[in-house]
Amino acid sequence: MKVLLKNYVTGKATERDMEVVATEAVELKVPEGSKDTIVLKNLYLSCDPYMRSRMTKHDTPSYVPDFVPGEIIVGYGVSKVVDSTHPDFKVGELVWGMIGWEEYSLISNPQNFFKINHPEIPLSHYTGILGMPGVTAYVGFHEIAAPKKGEYVFVSAAAGAVGQLVGQFAKLMGCYVVGSAGSDEKVELLKNKFGFDDAFNYKKESDLNLALQRFFPQGIDIYFENVGGAMLEAVLENMRLHGRIATCGMISQYNLVEPDGIRNLLQIVAKRIRMEGFVVFDYFANYYKFEEMTVQYIKEGKITYVEDIVEGLENAPTALIGLYEGRNIGKKVVVVSRE
Amino acid sequence: MKVLLKNYVTGKATERDMEVVATEAVELKVPEGSKDTIVLKNLYLSCDPYMRSRMTKHDTPSYVPDFVPGEIIVGYGVSKVVDSTHPDFKVGELVWGMIGWEEYSLISNPQNFFKINHPEIPLSHYTGILGMPGVTAYVGFHEIAAPKKGEYVFVSAAAGAVGQLVGQFAKLMGCYVVGSAGSDEKVELLKNKFGFDDAFNYKKESDLNLALQRFFPQGIDIYFENVGGAMLEAVLENMRLHGRIATCGMISQYNLVEPDGIRNLLQIVAKRIRMEGFVVFDYFANYYKFEEMTVQYIKEGKITYVEDIVEGLENAPTALIGLYEGRNIGKKVVVVSRE
Ligand SMILES: NC(=O)c1ccc[n+]([C@@H]2O[C@H](COP(=O)([O-])OP(=O)(O)OC[C@H]3O[C@@H](n4cnc5c(N)ncnc54)[C@H](OP(=O)(O)O)[C@@H]3O)[C@@H](O)[C@H]2O)c1
Ligand SMILES: NC(=O)c1ccc[n+]([C@@H]2O[C@H](COP(=O)([O-])OP(=O)(O)OC[C@H]3O[C@@H](n4cnc5c(N)ncnc54)[C@H](OP(=O)(O)O)[C@@H]3O)[C@@H](O)[C@H]2O)c1
Repeated sequence: MKVLLKNYVTGKATERDMEVVATEAVELKVPEGSKDTIVLKNLYLSCDPYMRSRMTKHDTPSYVPDFVPGEIIVGYGVSKVVDSTHPDFKVGELVWGMIGWEEYSLISNPQNFFKINHPEIPLSHYTGILGMPGVTAYVGFHEIAAPKKGEYVFVSAAAGAVGQLVGQFAKLMGCYVVGSAGSDEKVELLKNKFGFDDAFNYKKESDLNLALQRFFPQGIDIYFENVGGAMLEAVLENMRLHGRIATCGMISQYNLVEPDGIRNLLQIVAKRIRMEGFVVFDYFANYYKFEEMTVQYIKEGKITYVEDIVEGLENAPTALIGLYEGRNIGKKVVVVSRE
Repeated sequence: MKVLLKNYVTGKATERDMEVVATEAVELKVPEGSKDTIVLKNLYLSCDPYMRSRMTKHDTPSYVPDFVPGEIIVGYGVSKVVDSTHPDFKVGELVWGMIGWEEYSLISNPQNFFKINHPEIPLSHYTGILGMPGVTAYVGFHEIAAPKKGEYVFVSAAAGAVGQLVGQFAKLMGCYVVGSAGSDEKVELLKNKFGFDDAFNYKKESDLNLALQRFFPQGIDIYFENVGGAMLEAVLENMRLHGRIATCGMISQYNLVEPDGIRNLLQIVAKRIRMEGFVVFDYFANYYKFEEMTVQYIKEGKITYVEDIVEGLENAPTALIGLYEGRNIGKKVVVVSRE
């Protein structure tokens, strides 16, 4: 079984833009004569918001290559090596990296895969807290936002794969942190599970500017930007002098044909704001340091992580589309096989 | 004679929003019993784009206080001390700082005034290259944009008070610099007087994105942002990875009731852009160091500066409004008195 992109997408992506097709029995061996190649048995697939961008046909190359209609969807995932002609990868080892949405993947250049050094942690965590979203939250908060103890932090899409970690990093740092999310259930989770100081359901607020004034009477020092659009506009009104916007993503814009216009960027001057974008790939060189540190945090119970796991590769398209509708609670993971 | 704000302004400001009124003969002495006070004879007034913002009635305080209808317009200017009860200011000394648009100003807290240490330089320069716009260009380029030799720099409103200096600083730094301005005469000045590598008249370009592609086939590392709106949107499309936008001002937005919406901020993520605002006031502590360095540059002929000088306080309202129509060529200065 594998999942293909059916067609380039304009505007709102749906399950029908992907197709789940049967595959012939797969050869579990590296083909004769192929050097430095591995065969992976895929265990967990990560559903990530940026994948929508790869479904669009870009005239000028985007920061990630476009998918090709008729070809397989690829994304981050956790896998087990079942055959290898690469000296650094042994049969039985667990890895995470870019794989096809299929049961087995043949990888001829595995140098970008990371070894999983802590198989005692739930393996699915390597799609989230110990994978790409974990590094994103860490780098975006600590390196881009440059927090100081006592600062006021706001996180949007706060109950998601990245957001829940940003909130916890902010608390560990001694900041005051408020999150927004799209359901009351998520708001509860933010306050009672992840330790946010406060949280609100943005869908129930008729005026985001007033909502932020209520939660941040003193203003916002750090905005961890996950959604863009109207929320960004409201945040700009509520930033404090010398505030920082760690610009991680703008999921509210990914399915729009005409993105929202942000009209109050002059606040960046008046309030001396630094708005800085980053892409996690640039920081993977330090991944193993991050892995050790975070495993330690998990074992000490200092950080918790919520996943939203669905069984079966055939459910991957629905799982992915659910991100843009806020159906996931925590990190969205698809189980292909549990081992 | 003095210039008053007649009414708060919404939308486009005009000369008629200000009023030039006669004043009674002024007492050239500090009033009996007033300590730490000076009387200034005003020589040169600076017309600066941010003054438009002070004509708007803001519901929440802006970064500079609103003017009050019926009261005098204030702005930066160059003056001579004609009386003083302040130990640090002596009669006959030259200073620059915030003065009223009038012939003589009584200043009871002169501690924010700067001494003019180089009266051998044309005094009007202390409204421009040696005044607020000079520090702005220096800080915005060197501290905010953090340029490296060989980088590609774009400056908008490039023939203005700030822009002409940014271009020259960029050349001194070994960057490649292109400027945009609103007339062919200004474009000539950029190329032939200020040493920009290239320049264009943005009013003659039907597609700013294509114009920037033409001038920066490799993309832009640093954008010195003076205008905002459509130009910012086009620039975002043409930034390089890890580019920086020194966000100095957005003059195209100052007279709009509904500012333009910027729709492509997602480029900040994809291209890892740092967009950072700053306000020159924050950097005045180092002013005298800047003054010495810049005077040196002027004397060595390494930097040149063009001013657009109009005679007479009564012409100040027209001079100020001209900024928003691009009528000034270089730094706009009003002469109240030549000494
Ligand atoms: N820069 C990087 O390198 C990098 C790396 C990873 C992720 N990211 C970005 O980080 C952000 C979060 O990613 P994630 O993996 O943690 O996803 P996630 O939060 O687990 O899932 C996406 C969530 O976004 C919210 N959302 C969806 N549509 C929305 C809309 N129109 N308006 C407001 N919220 C909306 C939904 O939660 P609600 O119920 O709250 O609406 C949804 O659950 C995304 O923007 C993503 O692109 C960036
Ligand atoms: N952040 C700070 O601390 C600080 C300090 C000083 C100045 N600034 C900002 O720096 C910028 C330049 O100031 P300046 O003193 O050097 O002014 P200036 O360039 O001497 O004069 C303003 C120029 O802006 C251009 N302009 C006017 N309306 C425009 C529009 N709708 N679209 C595009 N360009 C337009 C005109 O030139 P063209 O002929 O090219 O159109 C005009 O000559 C302004 O945005 C100002 O607010 C910021």
